[in-house]
Amino acid sequence: METPCIVINEATVRRNIQRMVAGLRAHGIAHRPHFKTHKSVRLAKMQLEMGAAGITCASLGEGETLADGGVTDIFLAYPIIGARKLARLVELSRRTALCTVVNSIEGAEGLNAAFAAAGTRIKVLIELDGGMGRSGITLDNINAFAQAITALPGLELIGVMTYRGNIYQNRGESEYVAETRKEAADLLKAQRQLQEIGIQVDVISSGSSFSSKFPQHLQGLTEARAGTYIYNDVSQLSTGMIQVEDCALTVLATVVTCPDKNHAVIDAGSKTLSSDLAKHGPGYGYILEHPNATIEKLSEEHGYLRLPDGTQLNVGDTLHIIPNHVCAVVNLADTYWAFDGQAHTEHPVDARGKSR
Amino acid sequence: METPCIVINEATVRRNIQRMVAGLRAHGIAHRPHFKTHKSVRLAKMQLEMGAAGITCASLGEGETLADGGVTDIFLAYPIIGARKLARLVELSRRTALCTVVNSIEGAEGLNAAFAAAGTRIKVLIELDGGMGRSGITLDNINAFAQAITALPGLELIGVMTYRGNIYQNRGESEYVAETRKEAADLLKAQRQLQEIGIQVDVISSGSSFSSKFPQHLQGLTEARAGTYIYNDVSQLSTGMIQVEDCALTVLATVVTCPDKNHAVIDAGSKTLSSDLAKHGPGYGYILEHPNATIEKLSEEHGYLRLPDGTQLNVGDTLHIIPNHVCAVVNLADTYWAFDGQAHTEHPVDARGKSR
Repeated sequence: METPCIVINEATVRRNIQRMVAGLRAHGIAHRPHFKTHKSVRLAKMQLEMGAAGITCASLGEGETLADGGVTDIFLAYPIIGARKLARLVELSRRTALCTVVNSIEGAEGLNAAFAAAGTRIKVLIELDGGMGRSGITLDNINAFAQAITALPGLELIGVMTYRGNIYQNRGESEYVAETRKEAADLLKAQRQLQEIGIQVDVISSGSSFSSKFPQHLQGLTEARAGTYIYNDVSQLSTGMIQVEDCALTVLATVVTCPDKNHAVIDAGSKTLSSDLAKHGPGYGYILEHPNATIEKLSEEHGYLRLPDGTQLNVGDTLHIIPNHVCAVVNLADTYWAFDGQAHTEHPVDARGKSR
Repeated sequence: METPCIVINEATVRRNIQRMVAGLRAHGIAHRPHFKTHKSVRLAKMQLEMGAAGITCASLGEGETLADGGVTDIFLAYPIIGARKLARLVELSRRTALCTVVNSIEGAEGLNAAFAAAGTRIKVLIELDGGMGRSGITLDNINAFAQAITALPGLELIGVMTYRGNIYQNRGESEYVAETRKEAADLLKAQRQLQEIGIQVDVISSGSSFSSKFPQHLQGLTEARAGTYIYNDVSQLSTGMIQVEDCALTVLATVVTCPDKNHAVIDAGSKTLSSDLAKHGPGYGYILEHPNATIEKLSEEHGYLRLPDGTQLNVGDTLHIIPNHVCAVVNLADTYWAFDGQAHTEHPVDARGKSR
């Protein structure tokens, strides 16, 4: 394998999926994993075979890639805006069991116009504000918003979803649990409020790989959309809730120069590792072979390592690096190598770069 | 054009190239632009037609893409390490006028073994330390290093090069000029030192888009490898040495939600704009339509805008954003749209993701 490249351990991937599905199932919650992390149809199908109830994706292009690959139970968790994209969405809905999200009146009206004109309907979930100021309807406004949605003939309101990404800003298990409980409580409150005004929603969909680690606190929700958990990364690791052996993806890199005894330069820079920082902790990745070395800086094709005294690296050495943020790293690579314990096989990152 | 996407203004691109070529030429310096910024064979050919003397690239894959597209005068400014890559390098050298870099004895010996075994030679430039601690031979060591290189039959030593990327950490024209003069002085000193021990090097190659803005201070060098200048970006803009109208590339994005009157969310996140920060200044890009708005945070498919009082945005509005770091943004996109004053035409980013 020439470097820099992505290598995944299939056994770890399978163990991560198995644990996630089983953990959620024990609390009556379906797993609808997010495609944005791996962007691989092969892995989406593995998730489905291992018990996932459908796939979540972040863009039309990801949804089309899934459909082209034969995956047809899709939740597109992004508001689709604009005539050309809406036409693609209508097309996609004709060949899949598709559901999407609404979080603004303008967006909902656009969807409605496109689907009503096509003589069909689209299932939608209302996005509930996840406390990130990013998007979503607040509990104060959700009743009026839901009433407006149900008045639109092209939309079929079936649920409520949220993404509470701020959980990653917290520290320590008690804070994580508190945030997870808040996520579940808000979603269930939204469901109750809507029920009180005569609107029944059956899908209650929660967010992150992180809250999914506490399924006992998600009781009452119907599905969880964890994505990153399939590979894990330094951001997950830095919370202390997973271990190095739970990380299924590494970047393989080669030492290209050793400027002095405390420094080495590798061929993985920001065009491979991305410039994403970990939520907690310094540097641009965790080096399996040298956990005490730091990737202290990146340029596009160079990673700058600071080595502790006594760590010797040589030009040509290869290193396995757990990246800070796997989703960003996968989206930079055309392919990944899967190691099944015996051999490495190269697979395409099918939806790489499909951000629209 | 569906968003998010990259749009370039051809007139600005041509003006940037014309100025760079003319500025350098007035001081007897050839322009060998860096391919890593645009990764487009079409634009490499435009640069050659407008007076560039050859192309610089950062990876074997970029070099192969250039050769496949018919561009054959190539400087590969990255040390090639490892048997499989060396075999590709030998192949590439058979169909191009190729030159590469050496910055370690181990790297030079690998090159030598591969080319000597193939019964041929490869032209090389010694990389001189650019003060970044990244790689390169110091002035103290360059004589001994050059003597070792000239003893290797598979290598033909033709020059010295450096990259002084720290120039971007400076502030103000006098600091930029001082750094540029240091760059030129070090390269010329290396040349003189080598001459004194009987080693004649004819190619003296300097680095950045930034030092190339001061060609009067690069006198005596033979070529400059500026890359970013073709598009420019917020990092260049934040130095005060270029203007908004010199920026040829924007990301076109759509407003997807407006959580409150001071916030909007766009469909360009870190998978489009990258997480790269500008050298000076906050945020993740400069919005042409609303220069006082700030892109204060990114998630993968969301950009979070803070709007000044009185700025009104609506779902569906489109915005043009000058990114912090164009090289990273281009490397995330499969295609770009070129606007020639009349129409937009889509072109491939030929070497996207070719980091190896």
